Amino acid sequence: MDKIPVGILGATGMVGQQYIALLANHPWFEVRYVAASPRSAGKVYRAAVGGRWNATRGDLGGSDSPAAASLIVEDANDVSKAIAAAKRGDCAFVFSALDMGKDEIKALEESYAAAGIPVVSNASANRWTSDVPMLIAEVNPDHADIIPAQKKNRNWDKGFIAVKPNCSIQSYMTPLWALLRAGYRVERIIVNTLQAVSGAGYPGVPSLDIVDNIVPYIEGEEEKTELEPMKILGTVQGNRITNAASPRISAHCNRVPVVDGHTACISLEFGGEKPSIDEIKRIWTSFKALPQELDLPMAPLRPIIIREEQDRPQPRKDREVDKGMAVSVGRIRPCNVFDIRFVAVSHNTVRGAAGGGILNAELLKAKGYLG
Amino acid sequence: MDKIPVGILGATGMVGQQYIALLANHPWFEVRYVAASPRSAGKVYRAAVGGRWNATRGDLGGSDSPAAASLIVEDANDVSKAIAAAKRGDCAFVFSALDMGKDEIKALEESYAAAGIPVVSNASANRWTSDVPMLIAEVNPDHADIIPAQKKNRNWDKGFIAVKPNCSIQSYMTPLWALLRAGYRVERIIVNTLQAVSGAGYPGVPSLDIVDNIVPYIEGEEEKTELEPMKILGTVQGNRITNAASPRISAHCNRVPVVDGHTACISLEFGGEKPSIDEIKRIWTSFKALPQELDLPMAPLRPIIIREEQDRPQPRKDREVDKGMAVSVGRIRPCNVFDIRFVAVSHNTVRGAAGGGILNAELLKAKGYLG
Amino acid sequence: MDKIPVGILGATGMVGQQYIALLANHPWFEVRYVAASPRSAGKVYRAAVGGRWNATRGDLGGSDSPAAASLIVEDANDVSKAIAAAKRGDCAFVFSALDMGKDEIKALEESYAAAGIPVVSNASANRWTSDVPMLIAEVNPDHADIIPAQKKNRNWDKGFIAVKPNCSIQSYMTPLWALLRAGYRVERIIVNTLQAVSGAGYPGVPSLDIVDNIVPYIEGEEEKTELEPMKILGTVQGNRITNAASPRISAHCNRVPVVDGHTACISLEFGGEKPSIDEIKRIWTSFKALPQELDLPMAPLRPIIIREEQDRPQPRKDREVDKGMAVSVGRIRPCNVFDIRFVAVSHNTVRGAAGGGILNAELLKAKGYLG
Amino acid sequence: MDKIPVGILGATGMVGQQYIALLANHPWFEVRYVAASPRSAGKVYRAAVGGRWNATRGDLGGSDSPAAASLIVEDANDVSKAIAAAKRGDCAFVFSALDMGKDEIKALEESYAAAGIPVVSNASANRWTSDVPMLIAEVNPDHADIIPAQKKNRNWDKGFIAVKPNCSIQSYMTPLWALLRAGYRVERIIVNTLQAVSGAGYPGVPSLDIVDNIVPYIEGEEEKTELEPMKILGTVQGNRITNAASPRISAHCNRVPVVDGHTACISLEFGGEKPSIDEIKRIWTSFKALPQELDLPMAPLRPIIIREEQDRPQPRKDREVDKGMAVSVGRIRPCNVFDIRFVAVSHNTVRGAAGGGILNAELLKAKGYLG
Repeated sequence: MDKIPVGILGATGMVGQQYIALLANHPWFEVRYVAASPRSAGKVYRAAVGGRWNATRGDLGGSDSPAAASLIVEDANDVSKAIAAAKRGDCAFVFSALDMGKDEIKALEESYAAAGIPVVSNASANRWTSDVPMLIAEVNPDHADIIPAQKKNRNWDKGFIAVKPNCSIQSYMTPLWALLRAGYRVERIIVNTLQAVSGAGYPGVPSLDIVDNIVPYIEGEEEKTELEPMKILGTVQGNRITNAASPRISAHCNRVPVVDGHTACISLEFGGEKPSIDEIKRIWTSFKALPQELDLPMAPLRPIIIREEQDRPQPRKDREVDKGMAVSVGRIRPCNVFDIRFVAVSHNTVRGAAGGGILNAELLKAKGYLG
Repeated sequence: MDKIPVGILGATGMVGQQYIALLANHPWFEVRYVAASPRSAGKVYRAAVGGRWNATRGDLGGSDSPAAASLIVEDANDVSKAIAAAKRGDCAFVFSALDMGKDEIKALEESYAAAGIPVVSNASANRWTSDVPMLIAEVNPDHADIIPAQKKNRNWDKGFIAVKPNCSIQSYMTPLWALLRAGYRVERIIVNTLQAVSGAGYPGVPSLDIVDNIVPYIEGEEEKTELEPMKILGTVQGNRITNAASPRISAHCNRVPVVDGHTACISLEFGGEKPSIDEIKRIWTSFKALPQELDLPMAPLRPIIIREEQDRPQPRKDREVDKGMAVSVGRIRPCNVFDIRFVAVSHNTVRGAAGGGILNAELLKAKGYLG
Repeated sequence: MDKIPVGILGATGMVGQQYIALLANHPWFEVRYVAASPRSAGKVYRAAVGGRWNATRGDLGGSDSPAAASLIVEDANDVSKAIAAAKRGDCAFVFSALDMGKDEIKALEESYAAAGIPVVSNASANRWTSDVPMLIAEVNPDHADIIPAQKKNRNWDKGFIAVKPNCSIQSYMTPLWALLRAGYRVERIIVNTLQAVSGAGYPGVPSLDIVDNIVPYIEGEEEKTELEPMKILGTVQGNRITNAASPRISAHCNRVPVVDGHTACISLEFGGEKPSIDEIKRIWTSFKALPQELDLPMAPLRPIIIREEQDRPQPRKDREVDKGMAVSVGRIRPCNVFDIRFVAVSHNTVRGAAGGGILNAELLKAKGYLG
Repeated sequence: MDKIPVGILGATGMVGQQYIALLANHPWFEVRYVAASPRSAGKVYRAAVGGRWNATRGDLGGSDSPAAASLIVEDANDVSKAIAAAKRGDCAFVFSALDMGKDEIKALEESYAAAGIPVVSNASANRWTSDVPMLIAEVNPDHADIIPAQKKNRNWDKGFIAVKPNCSIQSYMTPLWALLRAGYRVERIIVNTLQAVSGAGYPGVPSLDIVDNIVPYIEGEEEKTELEPMKILGTVQGNRITNAASPRISAHCNRVPVVDGHTACISLEFGGEKPSIDEIKRIWTSFKALPQELDLPMAPLRPIIIREEQDRPQPRKDREVDKGMAVSVGRIRPCNVFDIRFVAVSHNTVRGAAGGGILNAELLKAKGYLG
């Protein structure tokens, strides 16, 4: 089949770069439009990024450089450029990795959608818009089905907005969902994250804050970690998504001297019947969801990989598993206060950002919402 | 006053080195006897340690070298050497930083005590011996008063054993105790530690495990972190110490790429009356205990330092405060699942090891148990 | 074509693991025999390695595990096991990544060769054996042609030994050779290496030596860095290889907190005619050698990648280029003391170890020396 | 004696902070005036610095906070503020750690001097002003004697400017000078520096550039490293300083993941007579200079410490020796290309910045130029 032409908003930032890298040989999508801030506009993508390239794959200056590195960067604020690109067949939809004020992003994403260009977004700006689905493809693919209602609400013809949640929750949301889907109730979770520096973008975390150090605080991160699961586990009711009532989550978020890969230490309390450790392992090992059934290109074969070694998962050693799209889980053991404890690792800029966004787009395509 | 001559068992290891460094100019104690494994015996201390020196202060080869670096190392297994040193006035008591099998350490520490040489130990071997006090000088100085019963139990004349707990609990035990002493009941704690590599000794953690990585497992550490507080908060009843019944603690222990300084993220649930955040800050800021009243040389002026910055405490920036003996606490805020959350940092090889051992010895001296 | 069955000696160590990882989907070779120390013998490879797995690709416990992970490990000291494997068609030749005493490795590699099993080695033991070629496939592929003389010298029928040089020289030997091949004479080189911790194996460098630190010494490394180029640039004369007379090299070797990727800072003095910076860039950019002409599977498309950014190459960002097999060069500029200066980066466990060994085997196969 | 009141320009930056920390208990000087950028002006110093505090000693929020932390920050651009402070006896001279454009710093430092306030500067702006001495107190204390001529040139009454050189040369300039003073001639030096991240200030080096990485480039650093020694080794001739003609220096400057402490690897070629390694060690061990003779408070007892261990000096382990003011040297050995090689480490923000500035001020005071 012909590849679908896609655009990337915020293409020169950390997450935008990762989109460029991950889409370099994508079987369905081809990057044909890149947009960023006005000061990058007009430059060749490769030059606009320059020394800031930090994607984990490919490279702009070496022999593996993605084709999109030769595109001219447009001004992301100027929607007419994207409309023109759409008309000439270079931009069927956009991935948004915009990095500006929340209100500006919200307005700008809406402008693209209003102009008939669907937006698959990584930004947090529209996560709490009630008719915008916040998707983890393995967890709540049915939330995509609010899109017709969203279009109708806004009087949009072809455009719509779908978002993905924050990277900090990716490592434990799929395991949590697998337990819920198996019929268990989860009441309370205390989670401690050890997050990689790439999550803060570039220049991001100063080295003086992180060499021989950890920073036990990331702005806004604990709130997102506690609240976003509520919407993801919620239900589509008419033209809005209603939050779930449980579990109750408390998050401590730390920045650690790791390049890529967020680690989460979780203590979890069940309500009602409690599965055994063996039962939990069985649930997680055998867990597959719609992306696996549809055999989506970016979907991991097994969304949850269980590590039996006593000291795994670890971010540097496990983040790359299955294209960086699987979650690695280990140290599943009883908790001295709640019911169980475990450790989960996922790649924050792949599974937790660009890779997750691409998987969402694949899901939306497979469901017929994209072209 | 004349300085008290002291010995160090396991003097060439990480914690032994820190004793040498911290005691270099101590007003009460003078290191006059050093003992280690047979392969170090007979060598000058400086040569026996060689390139393994990793104490945070002083240095063996520079111009700041402690005087004890010129002592001849004896075989720690040979108690008769220490007895001879005691007779010639070079060893009134020993600090034990032995690093061998648990059963061997237990037997060896008992041999020293039986020979009339008190043992102030960092090792875990005797922590669960029922008549051995496990002391944090600010928390349970009264446990020292089991020493006469211990001597009587064992038929020991001058010798006895006192130990200190694991480094992983130092950062939150004093804050916890301050709350308990103020009359509040604590039911449950979930704690996540981010521990420095120096805690594993030398060579310890391989660099391939910790550069651009974290290891979410430390052997035996979670058990110690959950259990040791129970004895420390317990009570002396006759000739044994009875464990406290609460709080219930669950620990996740992680190794992180930090040289020195353990960080703990704590979620805490009260029973009964709950203090406000302001009340907690007032309790912690004003907390002083027996070491402060006695003005012990190694005691921090204020055992608990509250940091008001949103991103503190941090291990590299806060570990050295007040000779490395104070605990820094910050991010005191409501918990979404329990009652409060906070972050605590302490220096693991000072407050959590050699410095804590020295403070214990000072306390025992002030109480009349040492000479 | 049917794949050639190969064995790996020292298969459980760092370099052995990298062979397993890199050969997982090799078009010519298939790992069918693995051998290591007696304490690993009899175990399934996956279990024998356990938590020590540190290869940069694949994983033993995840879903990407190489097929060889299920092989039973044999005792590398027992050549009869390899002979039996060779007889049943499981071991046409071996890669040696042995890690034991130099004399033992020398004797053991000779035993394999004497038994008719060619040895393609990473070990340093036979690097200075005068009839053993020390190969960088792009630099001195003609040295392979000493193999018939070597066999005759030793009265070996099918077996022989070929080795590769130390990882510390890989980043600048190809650029140096390209200049020599273009007709320029190089008199003197002062090189400073910043070497990754993976070069020291596992457990290797203790984290206390490398977090917030560098170690300006690596045992034996400066000697290798200064001498090995002399043999590589030498000539086959009859049944031995005679060293080159120039250039004269001085090396400072440092260990730095980098996982993979050795960096070298080079000052170089020409003798006779001096090329311009532009001429040097042209020579390096266009450099291709026999592995590229033969289109060997492991050969990089372009052996030398020039980076024009002012701050490249960098180990983390450039080590993976072209399967980790290309050398990245940058900051080519006049030297204030010699003629030119530049910085070069190569992947030490791929280009500098297992990948280089595989490329050597491909070269030997293409030249008809392997089967 | 009464302490001399001093001011600090650029007091809130990295080097300014280090001045505050190092002067906290200085026997001669007392910080009574602090100035920084307009956006800090009017704030209490502690609040103006906030989370950016990165000095290696003391702390703004803990119990060890320096008294100067309570001063109100003035606008460094407004010289009249300093004049007023000087009049009320709060500012006899200033340390300049200004961080702005070079031309602005040059003009501003001259304004202070013209107003009668001597400037002891860390900035590079005036390093190449021909009548401004660039001082390393142990190397060229006689250059201070150009100050009367400088005053006369400019028609300045009390004010003058004295500067210190770049941090990158501190670790090898004193050893180099010791050899020259002993009568040996040095022709050529190739030096490779591995520089700590604190040298780039805060936020400075992004963590994504330095975790698991090194950056082989620091803007402007190689030029300074090659040129500044020429002036320092030059001679005062009339009213200007004439550069030395030798040695010729080539520098490669790298940024490494080290918090504090610059390492230099040096290859050195003598002209004429060549000292033996033993003679060199004797020269360095016994080296003392004017600061030691005058017993200046900040002067190290021995400016050069020789380490005999094969793997020292190392930045984390040696940077703090003798208040961070001594240079540690080791691995003194023959060079395969030049005559000798060695490794040198010094603390870049102490010896190489604020500590060096304070020592210069002490020297100027002792020589009668300050009050």
